[in-house]
Amino acid sequence: MGDTYAIDPDISREDAFAYWFAPKNHTYIAEAGSGILGTYALRTNRTGGGSHVSNASFMVAPAAHGKGIGRAMAEHCLSEARRLGFTAMQFNFVISTNEHAVRLWKNLGFQIVGTLPRAFRHPGKGLVDVYVMFRTL
Amino acid sequence: MGDTYAIDPDISREDAFAYWFAPKNHTYIAEAGSGILGTYALRTNRTGGGSHVSNASFMVAPAAHGKGIGRAMAEHCLSEARRLGFTAMQFNFVISTNEHAVRLWKNLGFQIVGTLPRAFRHPGKGLVDVYVMFRTL
Repeated sequence: MGDTYAIDPDISREDAFAYWFAPKNHTYIAEAGSGILGTYALRTNRTGGGSHVSNASFMVAPAAHGKGIGRAMAEHCLSEARRLGFTAMQFNFVISTNEHAVRLWKNLGFQIVGTLPRAFRHPGKGLVDVYVMFRTL
Repeated sequence: MGDTYAIDPDISREDAFAYWFAPKNHTYIAEAGSGILGTYALRTNRTGGGSHVSNASFMVAPAAHGKGIGRAMAEHCLSEARRLGFTAMQFNFVISTNEHAVRLWKNLGFQIVGTLPRAFRHPGKGLVDVYVMFRTL
């Protein structure tokens, strides 16, 4: 808990839903007969002169980890972002110790364009670096 | 208009006030006998494990440009951020063509820790790079 997103782990159920399904978000659910496998939210990263750059957040259900759901959602997300007219995608806060995510984003064409020194207090590892990752679409 | 912040230049007066005076913000006003010289908003850049890093936005009244108001507010802001317990400050979106701001932040100890390629559509210059700037407190 609290080791992948800069969100208060004690966020209420209501606030979590409001955050994930915010009106500005395009929110998607990956599901199979057995239930929900994951979800992602796609949005404009900045308004005004920055509105051509998209941003997205992903969550995979614990029972569905290791089955390629994250990659499948990410590929769908990149496709949706292009369809919506975005010309780039930016991740603002990829925690460096989240090696699985960093590797996946690199495999999908993202580059580390910035490093925020010790910008995340990891519950087990203390202060760790955070990456800003970016790719054009 | 629209060449320094990634905010829709057509934002309504109400939305602009709501943005600047958001409940999560510490908003300050610099004033003299003659009126308001500038304002800044100081806030947590991220919640949860990122909450030790602050963020701030600044505006100087057009009639007060070139009088050191920006620098004075920035120094006050860094002091306030320390007083509130923050251990770093991050600017997420410093437009590279805003040379005055880039120079001021560098003079005040900020470093460019990331470059977002062509992430801002400048009204006169087309797509230009954007910097992420950071300093510890």
